[in-house]
Amino acid sequence: MFEFMTIRELYEIVLGGSHVEIDSIEYVQLQGWVRTNRSSGKIGFIELNDGTYFRNAQLVYSSDLKDFNEVEKYTTGSALTVMGKFVYTPQGKQPFEIQVKEIELEGACDHDYPLQKKRHSFEFLREIPHLRPRANSFYAIFRLRSVLSMAIHEFFQNQGFVYVHTPIITGNDAEGAGETFTVTTREDANYEEDFFGKHASLTVSGQLHVEAFAMAFRDVYTFGPTFRAENSNTTRHASEFWMIEPEIAFADLEDDMDLIEDMVKYCINYCLENAPEEMKFFERMIDKECIARITKVRDSEFKRMTYSEAIELLKQADVKFENDQIEWGMDLQSEHERYLCEKVVNGPVFLTDYPKDIKAFYMRLNDDGKTVAACDLLVPGVGELVGGSQREERYEVLAARMQEMGMESESLQWYMDLRRYGGCKHAGFGLGFDRMLMYLSGMQNIRDVEPFARTPKNLVF
Amino acid sequence: MFEFMTIRELYEIVLGGSHVEIDSIEYVQLQGWVRTNRSSGKIGFIELNDGTYFRNAQLVYSSDLKDFNEVEKYTTGSALTVMGKFVYTPQGKQPFEIQVKEIELEGACDHDYPLQKKRHSFEFLREIPHLRPRANSFYAIFRLRSVLSMAIHEFFQNQGFVYVHTPIITGNDAEGAGETFTVTTREDANYEEDFFGKHASLTVSGQLHVEAFAMAFRDVYTFGPTFRAENSNTTRHASEFWMIEPEIAFADLEDDMDLIEDMVKYCINYCLENAPEEMKFFERMIDKECIARITKVRDSEFKRMTYSEAIELLKQADVKFENDQIEWGMDLQSEHERYLCEKVVNGPVFLTDYPKDIKAFYMRLNDDGKTVAACDLLVPGVGELVGGSQREERYEVLAARMQEMGMESESLQWYMDLRRYGGCKHAGFGLGFDRMLMYLSGMQNIRDVEPFARTPKNLVF
Repeated sequence: MFEFMTIRELYEIVLGGSHVEIDSIEYVQLQGWVRTNRSSGKIGFIELNDGTYFRNAQLVYSSDLKDFNEVEKYTTGSALTVMGKFVYTPQGKQPFEIQVKEIELEGACDHDYPLQKKRHSFEFLREIPHLRPRANSFYAIFRLRSVLSMAIHEFFQNQGFVYVHTPIITGNDAEGAGETFTVTTREDANYEEDFFGKHASLTVSGQLHVEAFAMAFRDVYTFGPTFRAENSNTTRHASEFWMIEPEIAFADLEDDMDLIEDMVKYCINYCLENAPEEMKFFERMIDKECIARITKVRDSEFKRMTYSEAIELLKQADVKFENDQIEWGMDLQSEHERYLCEKVVNGPVFLTDYPKDIKAFYMRLNDDGKTVAACDLLVPGVGELVGGSQREERYEVLAARMQEMGMESESLQWYMDLRRYGGCKHAGFGLGFDRMLMYLSGMQNIRDVEPFARTPKNLVF
Repeated sequence: MFEFMTIRELYEIVLGGSHVEIDSIEYVQLQGWVRTNRSSGKIGFIELNDGTYFRNAQLVYSSDLKDFNEVEKYTTGSALTVMGKFVYTPQGKQPFEIQVKEIELEGACDHDYPLQKKRHSFEFLREIPHLRPRANSFYAIFRLRSVLSMAIHEFFQNQGFVYVHTPIITGNDAEGAGETFTVTTREDANYEEDFFGKHASLTVSGQLHVEAFAMAFRDVYTFGPTFRAENSNTTRHASEFWMIEPEIAFADLEDDMDLIEDMVKYCINYCLENAPEEMKFFERMIDKECIARITKVRDSEFKRMTYSEAIELLKQADVKFENDQIEWGMDLQSEHERYLCEKVVNGPVFLTDYPKDIKAFYMRLNDDGKTVAACDLLVPGVGELVGGSQREERYEVLAARMQEMGMESESLQWYMDLRRYGGCKHAGFGLGFDRMLMYLSGMQNIRDVEPFARTPKNLVF
């Protein structure tokens, strides 16, 4: 008699279904957790959430329910199974309610439950990562995280890209991308006697490894965790985070920027379509501009501008920068990047052709001998969102560049050899997944978009 | 005039398109790598692979090509751009060929290229993980790896499961699942002064963390790398491998087995449909039975049998086991598992309700006090493929079990607390992704299904 349904199914029928479909729902069984419970002594209301949908179902129970006095006492957080009659209430505050016929307590919630009705600070909630997914902001962000992950996979797989699990433990030395964690089974740093017979680290990037796969499959991507052992306590740095690193063969910087633009637009659109309730929540509670901002980006043509042009524009700017020593060769700060995309372009813009001295060794040297075929995507509200480049495919040029930078080349001989064995022009980029999530939602701290964030001196569970 | 096309696009039109579509292809541009090149001095043939499809395109070039003498010398592995005329050859060995009009060498391949035409041993190829994706077996397995990854994501996302990135670096002590790697920035094992201010390890499983998310989202899954610092040099053990760990709330062991069965069948079907050329290659070159075996599993009803029943059947078996001390309480070996699914059931079978002493602390104690609500899925040809269980949701029972096993409970208090704060019955399982890939393809060594395999004393790049 009672048909099991999820709250998502009920909302989807009520918000999108026909009258025939709505009328066909009669008696339903729901399972979920109490968000709030209040009773007048004669009639009570429970807001139930079952994990499938952002919004709750309202349960109404009255004093003719046999366990009325017990049900009144169910605390926030308790797990329930409910049988009830579905009532369509299109004029009401919620579009339907469930009149409770039977109710069963699956799991009570102790009185020291930290998530009471009052609003908690994000700082407080970071201490209870096992419980915070039940708090609205985290309930929204972690579903968005899942939706965005699927957007990434669909975008690349639909175009025939091959997903590569590049290794987490690596024997390569850091490629200048930052400090690394050591992976060991010893306590004495005797790495020759260690598990792998040599020093091992956690990866800082899958790019070098995935380039090898681009030379077999043409279009490939990684999507996995990467690590930095940097002692930075900022709102944008975590020690463990996920990155997307596509690599495309027979492709140059222009192809790379086209791909980045397509991907960013696809992801925005996918999240707006597949997490509309979550996005509305972020707009209401976290960042009033977030939907407008990303919708505008989705509908914009991304501009392109060289680094050198950008420097000229910054020199002419009539604003005061904190760092106002603008000169060619400098690394741009967030304030400069935001000025360029927010004030000059008023939309997303790729900066290209950066000075080689501020970019990585593997980026392709331009004919001027001073710049490399790199691009950073700058977006309003954030600054840099994606960094990419065409890779140096010329063996001799790459070798000279590595020598110039004082790099030890023996451990990267395999990488250089890709240039000797049927190498071709190729390009790729890196997207910090967690920062993309911050960008979409307006969440301000990377600690609040990762399920169990890892930062210096902070490892909860 | 020359339209850029991939070799996949050409095959898809030729094998599945209408005559109108086939006739519409005239002059095409291809880019790819030389698999073989042979010439009679008057006419030459290049097998070109472009990374998009398992099969090659045959290029035909004749002595009226202006660079004929150069093209003759292009070595295996070289990268090319080719302009040519498409010729449909339905009677030929290959369904089409490309008559070369122009050809350009994108990247030559040095003469010490290790992948010459002769067949190489898998052992040899393991030493060159940056090049082996271009060898047929690896070209097939790494595309299948990507296809299977997408099968997993689609299966769970289509049913509303939330994908959770459980942490790689963990502060939990190993939960009895095996030896762990230490993650550190120090050389003196002074973990209090270490990066996180305490001892940190690489995760052995995301299950405990993902359970917390099941209590918010009902149905969740992880899919990410896990690690074991075990000194096992077998064909089935790697130090780094990917696991899928779903967790479902308001669910018992029966629900769990239903989900496992659905997932395995979905993945098999998805791979047969989306990697047909690769599967045909495995059938031809690696394991003659592989397609028949998995097709049969896809079309079977999975049987269910208790561990106790299995022990009785093993006692009555008229075969000689290497370990023939069959008694209740023993851990089954692969030979026993294979006997049960291959000889007794002749198909996939779940064993359920194992003795608690050979299973993990978090599995739900049955009413007999001796067994737990666990299940292992056994399949012909391999033995165990998936392990799952209903989790212990009763705080006091869990606490007693942990004490009985001498477990330190302080660091797992958060996990126990999930039972005090609206816990409910729930279940989940673990699927070793790499082993599933071995099972589908018939590949016999886990080192040959991972892009860059990590095993004791072995860390190439």
